[in-house]
Amino acid sequence: MPAAILAGDALLALAEEILLDLGTAGSARAARCLASTTRRLIAGQALDLGFESRQDVTLEECTVMSLDKTSALFACACTLGAVLCEAPTRLALALAGFGSDLGLAFQLVDDLLGIWGRTEVTGKPVLSDLRSRKKSLPVTAALNAGTPASRRLAALYAQPDPLSEAQLVEAAALVEEAGGRAWAETTADKRIASAQAQLATAEIPAAVREEFMAVARFVTARDC
Amino acid sequence: MPAAILAGDALLALAEEILLDLGTAGSARAARCLASTTRRLIAGQALDLGFESRQDVTLEECTVMSLDKTSALFACACTLGAVLCEAPTRLALALAGFGSDLGLAFQLVDDLLGIWGRTEVTGKPVLSDLRSRKKSLPVTAALNAGTPASRRLAALYAQPDPLSEAQLVEAAALVEEAGGRAWAETTADKRIASAQAQLATAEIPAAVREEFMAVARFVTARDC
Repeated sequence: MPAAILAGDALLALAEEILLDLGTAGSARAARCLASTTRRLIAGQALDLGFESRQDVTLEECTVMSLDKTSALFACACTLGAVLCEAPTRLALALAGFGSDLGLAFQLVDDLLGIWGRTEVTGKPVLSDLRSRKKSLPVTAALNAGTPASRRLAALYAQPDPLSEAQLVEAAALVEEAGGRAWAETTADKRIASAQAQLATAEIPAAVREEFMAVARFVTARDC
Repeated sequence: MPAAILAGDALLALAEEILLDLGTAGSARAARCLASTTRRLIAGQALDLGFESRQDVTLEECTVMSLDKTSALFACACTLGAVLCEAPTRLALALAGFGSDLGLAFQLVDDLLGIWGRTEVTGKPVLSDLRSRKKSLPVTAALNAGTPASRRLAALYAQPDPLSEAQLVEAAALVEEAGGRAWAETTADKRIASAQAQLATAEIPAAVREEFMAVARFVTARDC
C-alpha cells in the first residue's frame, strides 16, 4: 500500500517532467492543464470521501463530484495532446468538452455496473457498491426522487448493521423502482450524444475522429 | 489518513499550478525543477521503505537514499526562487549546492535526534528510531564499521522479538561504540562547512545571505 501510493505520486511527477521537458509554450500550458486536473480529481475524491458519512447528498453535489473526479480526467486526456502541440483554442476546447461529457457517461455506466454488473465483467462482487453503501449517481438519484421507494432505500442505507444478501437485492430493486437506474441510463445516453456533437465541431482528420469515437464506444459498451 | 494523502497530493498539484501560472520561461523551469525533485523524494522514500526488510544496507546506499529523500528537497527549496526569476545559472547552482549539503546535515542531525534526542524536543519517544529498527545514517555507519560492537548491534537488529528497554539502551551505546555517532556528527559538520562555502560563492545581497545562514543555524542547532 505505501509502495502503491509512492508509485502513483512518482508517475504524476514524471508526467509533469516529461511535459515540461519539451520547453515550449504548449509544454508549459499542458503541464498546467495536468496540474489543475490533478487538483480537481483530488477535490472530487475528497468530496466522495465526505459523502460516506453523510445521509443528505443531493444529486447536484454528486454530479459535481463526478465532474471533478472523472470528467476532468477524461477532458484532460482528450485535450492534452492538442494543448501540447499548440492547436487552435477552439479545437482544444471541443476535445475537452468531448472528454468531459464522455467522462460523466463513463461514471454513470460504471455506477450502473457497480450495482447490476456481472462479477466476470467488473471483477467486483455483485451489488458491490450497495454493499459498501456508496452514494453513486443512480443511488443518489433514487434517494432524492421523493418516492416511497426512496424512503425505503434511505432506511436501508441508514441501517447500522451490514446489509444482508436479501437486503442488497431489495436495495437494487428500490434504486430501480425510484427511477435511479432509468435516470442514469438516460443521462449517460444524453452525455454521449453531447460528446459526439462536440467532437463533430472539431476540425481533425477522419482517422483521428474515428479513434476518439472508438474510445466513446468502448466506454459505454461495457457489458452490464 | 486518506484525507491526509489527498491533501498532500493536492498541495503538490497546486504548487505546480502556481509556478506555471506566471507563464514565463523561468516559471516552466521552476515547475520542472519541482517535478523532478518530487520524483527524487519519492525514489528516496521508496529506497528507505525497501531498507526495512534488508540487513545488508551499505553506508553508500543509505547516503544516496538521504540525498534523494532530504537533500533534493532542500536543494529545490533553496534554488527555486532563483530558477523562477531566471537568475544566472551559477547563482542557481550555488544555492542548490548550499541546500543539498544543508539537507544532508539536517538528515544527520535528525537521525542523531532519533536516537539521542529528548522527547520534549523531538515529540517522539526516546530511542524511537532504534525501537523501529530504522536503518538511519548513524546506525548504518555503525553496522558497517566492522567492529565487535557492529556485530552485536546487527544481532540486536536481527532479533525477531521487540527490543526491551534495556536492549534499546544497549543498542544506542553500540551505535556510539562502533563510531556511528561520531561519524554522523563529523559528517554533519563537514556538510555545513561545505554549504557555507557554496553560499559564499553566491552573489546575493548581505541580508539575503544572512537569511540563508539563519536557516542553516536553525537546522543544525536543534538541541540533542
